[in-house]
Amino acid sequence: MQDPAPARAMKAEKLRGIIRVAHRLAALFAPRSIAMIGATDKSFWSQEIFRNFAVCGFPGKVFMVNKRGTPAHGQPGYASCRDIGEKIDAGYIFVPLEAVFDAVEDAAAAGINFLSVLTSGFAETDAAGKQLQAELLTFANARGVTIFGPNSLGFVNLTASTPLSAIRIMPPVLPPSIAVVSQSGASAVDLYDFAQQQNIGISFIAATGNEGQIDLADIIDYLVDEPSTKAIAVFAETIRDAQKFATAAEHARKIKKPIVILKIGRGALSAQVALAHTGSLVGDDKVFAAACRRYGVIRVASAEDLILTAGLLAQTGFLRRPGIGVVSLSGGASTLVADMAEEMGVVLPPLAPATIAALREFMPQYGSTLNPLDITGAALRDTSLFTKSIRAVAADENVGLVAMCFTPPNNIHQTIDTALPGVGEGARGLTKPVVIVTTLLKNSNDYARGKITEHGLPFVIGGLDHAMRAIGKVSWWSGELGKSAPPLHVKGATNGRHPVTERETLDYLAEFGIPVIPASIVTSGEAAAAAAAALGGTVALKIASPDIAHKTEVGGVRLGLSGAAVAAAFEDIMASVAAKAPDARLEGVIVSPMRAGGLELFAGTAQDPIWGPVIAIGLGGVWVEALNDTATSLLPVSAPEVVAMLKTLRGAKLLQGFRGAPPADLNAIAEIIVQIGNAALALGPGLASLEINPLWVSGAKIEALDALAVWAEPAVNQE
Amino acid sequence: MQDPAPARAMKAEKLRGIIRVAHRLAALFAPRSIAMIGATDKSFWSQEIFRNFAVCGFPGKVFMVNKRGTPAHGQPGYASCRDIGEKIDAGYIFVPLEAVFDAVEDAAAAGINFLSVLTSGFAETDAAGKQLQAELLTFANARGVTIFGPNSLGFVNLTASTPLSAIRIMPPVLPPSIAVVSQSGASAVDLYDFAQQQNIGISFIAATGNEGQIDLADIIDYLVDEPSTKAIAVFAETIRDAQKFATAAEHARKIKKPIVILKIGRGALSAQVALAHTGSLVGDDKVFAAACRRYGVIRVASAEDLILTAGLLAQTGFLRRPGIGVVSLSGGASTLVADMAEEMGVVLPPLAPATIAALREFMPQYGSTLNPLDITGAALRDTSLFTKSIRAVAADENVGLVAMCFTPPNNIHQTIDTALPGVGEGARGLTKPVVIVTTLLKNSNDYARGKITEHGLPFVIGGLDHAMRAIGKVSWWSGELGKSAPPLHVKGATNGRHPVTERETLDYLAEFGIPVIPASIVTSGEAAAAAAAALGGTVALKIASPDIAHKTEVGGVRLGLSGAAVAAAFEDIMASVAAKAPDARLEGVIVSPMRAGGLELFAGTAQDPIWGPVIAIGLGGVWVEALNDTATSLLPVSAPEVVAMLKTLRGAKLLQGFRGAPPADLNAIAEIIVQIGNAALALGPGLASLEINPLWVSGAKIEALDALAVWAEPAVNQE
Repeated sequence: MQDPAPARAMKAEKLRGIIRVAHRLAALFAPRSIAMIGATDKSFWSQEIFRNFAVCGFPGKVFMVNKRGTPAHGQPGYASCRDIGEKIDAGYIFVPLEAVFDAVEDAAAAGINFLSVLTSGFAETDAAGKQLQAELLTFANARGVTIFGPNSLGFVNLTASTPLSAIRIMPPVLPPSIAVVSQSGASAVDLYDFAQQQNIGISFIAATGNEGQIDLADIIDYLVDEPSTKAIAVFAETIRDAQKFATAAEHARKIKKPIVILKIGRGALSAQVALAHTGSLVGDDKVFAAACRRYGVIRVASAEDLILTAGLLAQTGFLRRPGIGVVSLSGGASTLVADMAEEMGVVLPPLAPATIAALREFMPQYGSTLNPLDITGAALRDTSLFTKSIRAVAADENVGLVAMCFTPPNNIHQTIDTALPGVGEGARGLTKPVVIVTTLLKNSNDYARGKITEHGLPFVIGGLDHAMRAIGKVSWWSGELGKSAPPLHVKGATNGRHPVTERETLDYLAEFGIPVIPASIVTSGEAAAAAAAALGGTVALKIASPDIAHKTEVGGVRLGLSGAAVAAAFEDIMASVAAKAPDARLEGVIVSPMRAGGLELFAGTAQDPIWGPVIAIGLGGVWVEALNDTATSLLPVSAPEVVAMLKTLRGAKLLQGFRGAPPADLNAIAEIIVQIGNAALALGPGLASLEINPLWVSGAKIEALDALAVWAEPAVNQE
Repeated sequence: MQDPAPARAMKAEKLRGIIRVAHRLAALFAPRSIAMIGATDKSFWSQEIFRNFAVCGFPGKVFMVNKRGTPAHGQPGYASCRDIGEKIDAGYIFVPLEAVFDAVEDAAAAGINFLSVLTSGFAETDAAGKQLQAELLTFANARGVTIFGPNSLGFVNLTASTPLSAIRIMPPVLPPSIAVVSQSGASAVDLYDFAQQQNIGISFIAATGNEGQIDLADIIDYLVDEPSTKAIAVFAETIRDAQKFATAAEHARKIKKPIVILKIGRGALSAQVALAHTGSLVGDDKVFAAACRRYGVIRVASAEDLILTAGLLAQTGFLRRPGIGVVSLSGGASTLVADMAEEMGVVLPPLAPATIAALREFMPQYGSTLNPLDITGAALRDTSLFTKSIRAVAADENVGLVAMCFTPPNNIHQTIDTALPGVGEGARGLTKPVVIVTTLLKNSNDYARGKITEHGLPFVIGGLDHAMRAIGKVSWWSGELGKSAPPLHVKGATNGRHPVTERETLDYLAEFGIPVIPASIVTSGEAAAAAAAALGGTVALKIASPDIAHKTEVGGVRLGLSGAAVAAAFEDIMASVAAKAPDARLEGVIVSPMRAGGLELFAGTAQDPIWGPVIAIGLGGVWVEALNDTATSLLPVSAPEVVAMLKTLRGAKLLQGFRGAPPADLNAIAEIIVQIGNAALALGPGLASLEINPLWVSGAKIEALDALAVWAEPAVNQE
């Protein structure tokens, strides 16, 4: 009989369009008959691969295939897949390189349409290896075979008890919770070990190897709809297909399945964006961070955080409120939690008066009702303190998750026996998640694990820094769930425009409603003086040339001029530029009014080779280069996103109105930045960078004072 | 027969004055007969305390004392210490609060002169508890008894096999390596557990409780000379006696014994320093960080890092070169190491050509000879690759430590059996330390631990982020060993001066050779104009008042004035100040020349309640408040320290000469900052803060443009 509640839920989800048809990889990832191609008792790999079937409790058939048909691992041997004589769903190939093509041929002939390939010597080596891999894929596909790898430790679908992998699975197989997808094989093994030690069950694990045909994003896409996977942990070296990754991430957000990613290679700068200042400020890593923010993907910086954060999310799901209520037994731990929360931006809201009143009913006199709450070691003698304090804090309207800081001692069963039921009783039946946080990171303790299962206890996570960081991520992710992202704009259309110089670029920006400074181009000192007089007040003079990007460095800028100084400055500029940039084409000198007071911002776009057009904003002038104080977003960007970006700047305080200066109108700035992004997108992918520096701000008065468009050379992708 | 080598070394150390006489606590910490006062089979604490004697292999006698003389833990019971009838070295008291005084009385009468007290209810509770604790100490000391605690889990001297503690010691007792001193009892237990799991032996562990008589610094001081302790790990909530801590730390540095500290409560600001801007910028935590830097104490931010860093240092000792050579089996791990090294400032020098040539002899073709070096998974098949690559990298002249990134698999004994000997062979006999770094943090594996001991293998540390951070600390500490610190200047002498206003303060600074801006005080618009004319060029006008610290906020500053504007500005200022600060005493208006170009720095001193006079420096103007970009040092400060501080500023690039501006003369700035510090010290402890803002810098031209002295009110400590 079907359980009506899940059926109703499924119907509702279908109505909302959330459930998709079965994923194309679902059948491939759950084979029921498998050939081990290269099986031999002598091989370490063969032993490792074979033992996984028993550990996982594989319900299907496994066949040993090797050149001579020798029995292996106590099973009969076959000289070819064709010899097996029955339908085989998948094969794992670990024969020597020179035998791979023959093995594929044989498997295909036997009707196998999915092969995982452990054998290395392909694209991971050199150009010849790349070529060989391409040939292998063509060869296999022509025979109707899909390849996983090559050079891959394979995958284990623990939900289906199906290992096709040399990643050693260890008993006990824990209830499935998170999936692990890794581009590094060695790291996949380490991540699995660590998850197991932390009592975090794995639903699916894959080392994607060379990703000839099936990449990280394909597997993420499959896992998003895989119901036993509650969170997806990704170890990435590169995102090969941003569009596919973004689509999977957006779908994951829609159905509230968290993706946590550790991406390595954070320090590298993209060569493509070195063309202009913008490029050197944006950098690859800031763009990836921006992509993660946009798609609600949780980013972490260490392998421990990857597993622990995913493990935590799998248990908590999303929080209905961002605040974290912390209950602790020790002043030391409380203080350390407060330190870490502050450093990591985790919100520990003060407890509400009603909560404090409830706590006062039973709290020891010397405890504290701050958040973190210190119920003192008295809880070890009166374990009802655990129960009552967890329930009181969970009832607080500002709390979305309760973190119970308590370290079940390693070998003191007495404490475990008395304390854990108190914690479990506190958490039971609550609608808000409770987690147990240990002071230091340690392995799951078998005795404690048993008790945790026995009492249906919350997830245990440690140490404090890993836990607080992970909790902060859960809180952040929960706040991202309502959002949706515009499509990736890798190749924008072009409006056919091609501005280059300051004046052309400012005029172009004006068409997008961006306020730009008035200016005239003059070619003599007299004309400069006349233009200045017409503007009134003091003026700035700047060289106008399509060949000079950095005008200050060639003596091409003079500021704060009035009266006779204007004509003199014109001559100075022309002389200086003639000396320092003798080959530059000169259009004259731009005369503009000076803007006094206010702040100078900077906005610059770039083309990221993976994610497409991006924008960086920051405090302008020399500060952008001296402090590298920028915030980055994919384009197009929305006004609320820009406001959030502005608030992340180190110098954000300056925007609030400093020492009597008017506060900058963040919404007005945001609208203009959005338009700068749109103006850049409309120039198409041939634009390398559009830079507005400075973007002058005084309260709600905002004006682009200088601008520069840099085009890719040779101009490419301009359809 | 005495081993001649240690004897010679000891003689040499004596000559250098390094070895001190036996520490006053040494005898107390190694008792040979112990009374458990409060012993009873029913008590959890009593059970815990008793079991430690067997686990530690305590070679002396333990006596059970309780009110009724009941036997406990299978031992005979005594109704009092006096009843025991033989000499007892120490007692551990865990009787109820109301029985503590009687217990001390009895113990003293039995000739016990050292008592550890677990019983709580003293200073950790309230004012009455504080009073009771003071009475207890007086009571005990009058009877010749020294108290450890109260409210303390006690100490275990594992080197002497002496536990006087409720911290559960677990078998096997590992060879001693690090000492742990904690002000938090719960944390002491957690730290011990973690060290044990990480295969790091403990020489001594103490939870200092209320520190009535023996505090953190006393124990550190004892441990510095304790020979089985190779590194000291400290978990601190507060430093009660900075002088004592500093003395112990300075001695530790002299004999090259590392101290690693986790100090909690990093976010709190001292109320005392809120008087002036300086205060709010300095903050407690920056001062503690400065104290650690000054005394070569290693500071960490998590409990895991505390133990792992101390454990690593205990094995490596100091490095003769700061560079780290990394050997890895996987591109993924290499990249992650590079990311982390960059983020943590760990120096991974490029390998020398000779090293690369040596590596090329045996490296797999597809490996990389960068640092991190990637020898690939081929090392698992040919384990001589471990040996050869470790030796080649260790031979590199820029490398001080070799980090072998390799994760001994948890349950694959075959890999452990083949790989670890190759690593061990590589490290054997090298003068440079080698450590094994695992990708993730995991518990010591019993099988691997056995093999590690069998092969005399290097220390194993993980995961990558903990390890790289710890390695960076070893490198930093090694560079601090040659240095020595001036004495702590908690109470400086005073030269009797008492400057308050801008002009008085600038004149006072000039006496220390600090260049100050010329200025005259005027009391009329006419006089202002005349003063401006005498100075030539544009001038600044600023209100002169002993009552106005923030002149801008009351409209008391006008800049860039010339001609008729000067007299007008005088009137504006007087009118604005009269309106906004009607009660302020006004001395007139200061007329000073304007300084164009260059940079504005900031320097401000403060009195830290624990560490005494400190100085903060940073970029001046609004930036100091907007960015909080300051560097802090204890006073007096040396010129090289100031240069190092300037280089840590976020805006340090501006000092290098930006966009054609001349580079600032860091040495000249440093000499002036040193003198600012000296000028503050000479004003004595009554000075709350001496602030120079801005300190104008243009190349080698440096000038104090404004200054302010703030005095503590009421002026205290002015002898």
